[in-house]
Amino acid sequence: MKRLPLSEIALVVGEEHLLTSQEDCSCYGYDASKLQGDAGCVVFPGSAREASSLLKLANRDRFPVFPRGAGSGMVGASIPLEGGMVMALTRLNRILEIDADNMVAVVEPGVVTGEFQKRASAHGLFYPPDPASLQFSTLGGNVAMCAGGPRAVKYGVTRDYVLGLEAVLPTGSIVHTGTRTMKGVVGYDLTRLFVGSEGTLAVFTRIILRLIPAPRAVRTLMAVFPRLDGAAQAVCDIIKNRIVPSTLEIMDQATIRAVEDHLRAGLPKEAEALLLIEVDGNPAGLDEEVADIQAVCLRNGADAVDVARTPEDRDRLWKARRSISPALGRIRSGKINEDVTVPRTRIPSLVRAITALAKKHDLTIVCFGHAGDGNIHTNIMLDRKDPEELRRAEKAVEELFRTVLDLGGTLSGEHGIGLTKSPFFPWETGPEGLEAMRRIKEALDPLDILNPGKMFVPNRAFFGAGKAASPS
Amino acid sequence: MKRLPLSEIALVVGEEHLLTSQEDCSCYGYDASKLQGDAGCVVFPGSAREASSLLKLANRDRFPVFPRGAGSGMVGASIPLEGGMVMALTRLNRILEIDADNMVAVVEPGVVTGEFQKRASAHGLFYPPDPASLQFSTLGGNVAMCAGGPRAVKYGVTRDYVLGLEAVLPTGSIVHTGTRTMKGVVGYDLTRLFVGSEGTLAVFTRIILRLIPAPRAVRTLMAVFPRLDGAAQAVCDIIKNRIVPSTLEIMDQATIRAVEDHLRAGLPKEAEALLLIEVDGNPAGLDEEVADIQAVCLRNGADAVDVARTPEDRDRLWKARRSISPALGRIRSGKINEDVTVPRTRIPSLVRAITALAKKHDLTIVCFGHAGDGNIHTNIMLDRKDPEELRRAEKAVEELFRTVLDLGGTLSGEHGIGLTKSPFFPWETGPEGLEAMRRIKEALDPLDILNPGKMFVPNRAFFGAGKAASPS
Repeated sequence: MKRLPLSEIALVVGEEHLLTSQEDCSCYGYDASKLQGDAGCVVFPGSAREASSLLKLANRDRFPVFPRGAGSGMVGASIPLEGGMVMALTRLNRILEIDADNMVAVVEPGVVTGEFQKRASAHGLFYPPDPASLQFSTLGGNVAMCAGGPRAVKYGVTRDYVLGLEAVLPTGSIVHTGTRTMKGVVGYDLTRLFVGSEGTLAVFTRIILRLIPAPRAVRTLMAVFPRLDGAAQAVCDIIKNRIVPSTLEIMDQATIRAVEDHLRAGLPKEAEALLLIEVDGNPAGLDEEVADIQAVCLRNGADAVDVARTPEDRDRLWKARRSISPALGRIRSGKINEDVTVPRTRIPSLVRAITALAKKHDLTIVCFGHAGDGNIHTNIMLDRKDPEELRRAEKAVEELFRTVLDLGGTLSGEHGIGLTKSPFFPWETGPEGLEAMRRIKEALDPLDILNPGKMFVPNRAFFGAGKAASPS
Repeated sequence: MKRLPLSEIALVVGEEHLLTSQEDCSCYGYDASKLQGDAGCVVFPGSAREASSLLKLANRDRFPVFPRGAGSGMVGASIPLEGGMVMALTRLNRILEIDADNMVAVVEPGVVTGEFQKRASAHGLFYPPDPASLQFSTLGGNVAMCAGGPRAVKYGVTRDYVLGLEAVLPTGSIVHTGTRTMKGVVGYDLTRLFVGSEGTLAVFTRIILRLIPAPRAVRTLMAVFPRLDGAAQAVCDIIKNRIVPSTLEIMDQATIRAVEDHLRAGLPKEAEALLLIEVDGNPAGLDEEVADIQAVCLRNGADAVDVARTPEDRDRLWKARRSISPALGRIRSGKINEDVTVPRTRIPSLVRAITALAKKHDLTIVCFGHAGDGNIHTNIMLDRKDPEELRRAEKAVEELFRTVLDLGGTLSGEHGIGLTKSPFFPWETGPEGLEAMRRIKEALDPLDILNPGKMFVPNRAFFGAGKAASPS
């Protein structure tokens, strides 16, 4: 690794926006994967022009650049390799415009997702993507990873709301992609190519987002199912009944038990599944939809369907869902959280296969997530300091991924590849798909400057054997 | 141009799927732009493998290949250059699967859009994209061009329904992109990169499409506005009122007059604008939405709002919209149809600028289209045999495009670039954006085999000076 041209870097961003101490650098070297990398410096560019100058320096001196939002990513996609430059976009945190008439916003990448939703909401507008980290994740990071969330079943994911970008390419040129309009077919769709490219193709400095009218009303239901198959069939039947809920969450038995041990809220520990369902839209139509959903759940064997009548009721129903994370923390010190996704009719097959995997490898595995779109968060509970348990977990993850692909699913519905899934990436793309992606990367980043060592490089960091980034 | 290796081509597809006579080739050399090219042969591959073999031959012998659907494109994107191979995908016309539970379909590219919609509808499902040509356009062509339509204001365009592709790359390798699930973030989004790539990056042999539940009910309204500004304000107010119509079409005064001269249906020729509005969804909520829309229209100066009570009523309201094309045919023998798009609040500015352009260049220009998403079809009526009028029209188009970009819009909401807009393409992308697209093209098609001479090559065909493709 060449030495970083720190004095020139300081000239670009100003001394006050450059960190070089090991301690400071390590604060910007982690993400939610618990991996940790050690950068050589951290810069906070204040404009596209500054980001461009930094990338031009990087190309001249051939040092790697690792763009970064709030570090809420799950797969190590923003972890720096040793000695490289972290480019933190958090200084670019302005909401530049909310054009309520045209339902379009222009934001900088460092805006926190939840803050933006609040600001949009003040205009009667709605920005649906709702990753679990939305209280601290940034829109730039959401775009880089194509963040999802519970509302995706009705409203789609981040890609469905990005209309255009101001983006700095790896070589330093600044492009403006997309439009401010809903329609636009002028040339290749660079916007959607860059969404979800995990910081390897472009640094975003402005984002044009689509907003929609806020729904007029919301209704919330919770249904308890003695049998998993009944819950899964109910999920399909609700949607076949021409109702698309805005949330359709499932918790399996292991999750119910963990939450009940934690909350003591009276959840039935013998139930195999629990569904949390929300519908939103025109209030005149919602009561009928609620009644239809109740009927579908009961027809599929639900013991009880609880309908929230007040905001307090609604909070109560959400409490179980929101308590999953702290409840799991009580089971084991660590977890591996995979976000596999299958066609929704295959959820019972997936959950059964996971139950079998847990038994085979003597692991506690907890499943919950977004049943409406088949995105099941699969949490292998473990103690990361127990190498033998970690090895069993590794084996289980490999078998999980094979199963998911056999079921017509995908390795990742929300989190992406980054470091932790890179060894399995070609399983899904095939060699030809991987080669096409690699050629695009080389075309836009011939010197492999922007976020190298991820995605295309099978990294064993996940298994505790990574060099540049090893588990903390 | 090298001679095509016809005997080897015949070995790949079979003699019966190869046309070589000049007459046959010219039948596959046109599209709705009225441009005409002369291919050296036309092939009808029966599988991805055959398409792959043909592209490998093309790379070996360096002849160009022009993929083609039903020829309903508006910009000459499928027009062959002299002596090249037209690859018509119409033989691959099977609906392979409609998975109603998971609301996913797998189709071949040659399936006719309207036929597919009927088949989906039999399952209670809905494929919203509705280009005007849907009775004969193919899904492969729709994906290549990212087709839109009136329903885009609520339901989006083709890109919003393509989940994955089996695609043959220009070099002949076969890739499988995307997933069968709503969520999926494994690597670069090749699916969306290929959607709208106008046949220059990939030949599609299978398409995975997302379906949604069919709306339970539809309501239709027509409102007549004495003033254009009132109609435009009503469009914004309806959506601000948290109602997203499934159709929100506008006709300007020139269109109303042309249609009334043709239909004699009692449309008020002094009115400056007419809105055709549909809402769909849960019937319990629709009556309220219809009442709200009526109120908004009246508040913005509408003379009358006609609400369809019966299917016959609905047909009557749609009759004016559907009669635009034949009505325009009576005005002049030819037209140039541009599909410019602006933020919806800028529609009055756009229509006024167009009225001024018509006056300045002594042209008849008729505007109508999708007001909800700002996509205004701008038709310059002319006699293509009158070179002087054609020159004035060229000048008006150039000025129209400048105006649209100044208004924050895009040159094309639905039709794409192809041959006819290629001279103006860099106006919107800028040199850096164009360069990024060109690098992607070169990375995937190093020998420039697939659909060359379009998009990146400023082509004067539109102006009657094209060599490979000149106006008929």
